[in-house]
Amino acid sequence: MNISNRIQSVPVSTIMELLTYSAKAKKLGKKVYHLNIGQPDIKTPEGFFDAIRGYKSKVLEYALSEGLPELIDAIRKYYKNYNIDFENEDILITNGGSEALLFTIISICDEGDNILVPEPFYSNYYSFCKSVGVDINPITTIAENGFHLPPKEDIIAKINSNTKAILFSNPGNPTGVVYTKEEIDMISEIAKEHNLWVIADEVYREFIYDGEYTSLGNIKCIEDRVIIVDSVSKRYSACGARVGSLASKNKKFIGSILKLCQARLSVPTLEQVGAIELYKTDNSYLHSVNKEYKERRDVLYNELMKIPGVICKKPSGAFYIVAKIPVKNADHFVKWLLSDFDIDGETVMPCPAEGFYHTPGFGIDEIRLAYILNSDDLKKAAYLLKEGLEAYLKIEK
Amino acid sequence: MNISNRIQSVPVSTIMELLTYSAKAKKLGKKVYHLNIGQPDIKTPEGFFDAIRGYKSKVLEYALSEGLPELIDAIRKYYKNYNIDFENEDILITNGGSEALLFTIISICDEGDNILVPEPFYSNYYSFCKSVGVDINPITTIAENGFHLPPKEDIIAKINSNTKAILFSNPGNPTGVVYTKEEIDMISEIAKEHNLWVIADEVYREFIYDGEYTSLGNIKCIEDRVIIVDSVSKRYSACGARVGSLASKNKKFIGSILKLCQARLSVPTLEQVGAIELYKTDNSYLHSVNKEYKERRDVLYNELMKIPGVICKKPSGAFYIVAKIPVKNADHFVKWLLSDFDIDGETVMPCPAEGFYHTPGFGIDEIRLAYILNSDDLKKAAYLLKEGLEAYLKIEK
Repeated sequence: MNISNRIQSVPVSTIMELLTYSAKAKKLGKKVYHLNIGQPDIKTPEGFFDAIRGYKSKVLEYALSEGLPELIDAIRKYYKNYNIDFENEDILITNGGSEALLFTIISICDEGDNILVPEPFYSNYYSFCKSVGVDINPITTIAENGFHLPPKEDIIAKINSNTKAILFSNPGNPTGVVYTKEEIDMISEIAKEHNLWVIADEVYREFIYDGEYTSLGNIKCIEDRVIIVDSVSKRYSACGARVGSLASKNKKFIGSILKLCQARLSVPTLEQVGAIELYKTDNSYLHSVNKEYKERRDVLYNELMKIPGVICKKPSGAFYIVAKIPVKNADHFVKWLLSDFDIDGETVMPCPAEGFYHTPGFGIDEIRLAYILNSDDLKKAAYLLKEGLEAYLKIEK
Repeated sequence: MNISNRIQSVPVSTIMELLTYSAKAKKLGKKVYHLNIGQPDIKTPEGFFDAIRGYKSKVLEYALSEGLPELIDAIRKYYKNYNIDFENEDILITNGGSEALLFTIISICDEGDNILVPEPFYSNYYSFCKSVGVDINPITTIAENGFHLPPKEDIIAKINSNTKAILFSNPGNPTGVVYTKEEIDMISEIAKEHNLWVIADEVYREFIYDGEYTSLGNIKCIEDRVIIVDSVSKRYSACGARVGSLASKNKKFIGSILKLCQARLSVPTLEQVGAIELYKTDNSYLHSVNKEYKERRDVLYNELMKIPGVICKKPSGAFYIVAKIPVKNADHFVKWLLSDFDIDGETVMPCPAEGFYHTPGFGIDEIRLAYILNSDDLKKAAYLLKEGLEAYLKIEK
């Protein structure tokens, strides 16, 4: 009566321990500015709620395993606007991007296989992989270089006979990096030359603040090996809907995923009914959200640049910044901010970045900051970070 | 760029092929009485929809990974009514019973391990297991015996060093069997003596028509090894909500599952808000649903008994009957019913039972009938089955 080895290799969420610290701080009356989470404060488009309120059937039936046809069609049209040509049969609806990722890993990897992932990466990639016996094969990127990819030969050197895919988020969580056209082309070449799948997690596609964006969906020459993971969570500030999708022109892959979709029967019906309306949201919504985040990015980045010893490049996408800070241990620093520091009863909570790295020892002196607060609050939070850091460095052992 | 071996071992849903037959029949204007699916026709309690319509927040945020506290508390109280003592910390909300099962298999089995399951069984058990490299170790049960369990020594003979658990649905899908107190005690003894987990899928707990019901949750002496899978789908006719749960007093197990729950972030917020109300539904709802299904069970069983050559015992629970029929190949018979048979433009669609068996050759001459139609339609469906069978036997090669 044992717990499996694979589940033992799945890490306990480090953020959960920190949340007990922040809960304690709040209990003591402290105000905590949360820069640690990816939960946007933007309003979900009303159409989502209206559609669900208007649902008429008296029996809440299973949806089709592949997803509601109208939702699939809406997603096809959405991609079409980006010149990404999917057929409805290429798209499956999933329980968030999370299920899309887990099902993908199961379908392309057997136990002992590995997936190339630029680090730092969204830490749940690791949990999904380890839960089904798959390893992450990290491609290290660094703050000094804005977390852009290393040269092609460095990536190729990591590939072995068990390497099945390259997985990355673009724009990147946690780094906010947006890969250049050249980087995407390089990934495509590597995938083709080494017979790998490419899994592109593009849930932050609309969160680009400077320059061009190249979706993997636009790279025609490798379209049979591209898998796009998507979600309404960030795009429409509908994290709690848990509506994601997978898209691929590889019929064998989609057929494989469909078997898993059929086994778990369906994605919630009402959430899909709501999501159909999300995709009809006027483009001005996405533009104004983009404008808002861009402003926040600028505010936070500029404030960070005023803090001595902080190293980061201005990120171009998503709503995160990973910054190197002049401390020995960022986890200890964050706990200290929550338990031992305040200015007029207020403190700030960044997320220690070590959990986003696979290579031991990396990220210990880094934090991730999510700019999910309004600009005034962000300024306040950055001020608290600056003052906190200064005070901490005086007592750091 | 391959598909994994494990996904290749997951079977394509056989019912999907049949659905193309029924779609074709309908296109030709035939009326098809569906006895093949587990989608109830009972109204979902209004409270579910009302609660969701009344949801006030403007931002649809992630719920907690473990589930909404009010929902967990409602489920604790629900169990309490059955004298099953869980703490809130023993319960996790999942994306339907499906996710509960997949996460459980991942958490207690490594690749190459196996799980004892009485066959015929809910066929998706097989898909969940194979998708993560786990084998099903079948305990064969037969129609002549009403699908009750074989003697203890027969079950023990199947156990090997890779056997980690016993998994079963009770009341049973597809058989409708309700295990006796003696059978549950036998399972408990085996689990204790051979150090196995017991996974009890009790989603049909309220669908008992005769005699007593013993939940695994009532067996105190093995409470540290019991895992209860549950769902609102059938109980409240809310299949499309995809709200399930796991409950166990084993802290190590719950802690392991929680890691997977945290990795996939959360279960849809609104569906949980609705589900809280489901658990407040007046007991008269469950009683009237039970009464309705009991009547249907009697109608269908009595009609089946009038068909020459049909072998089945009267099932005591769920809303299914598995019957042996005097044909060589039930799959062929069902396809024939859809494509070559009708009376006044009407036909019937049972589900071939072979897919519910693991042992090759078993179930080929069996069908599963779901009594999810009203009594008049059920009578009509049984009549069509009787006439269809008679006609088919004349031409069967």
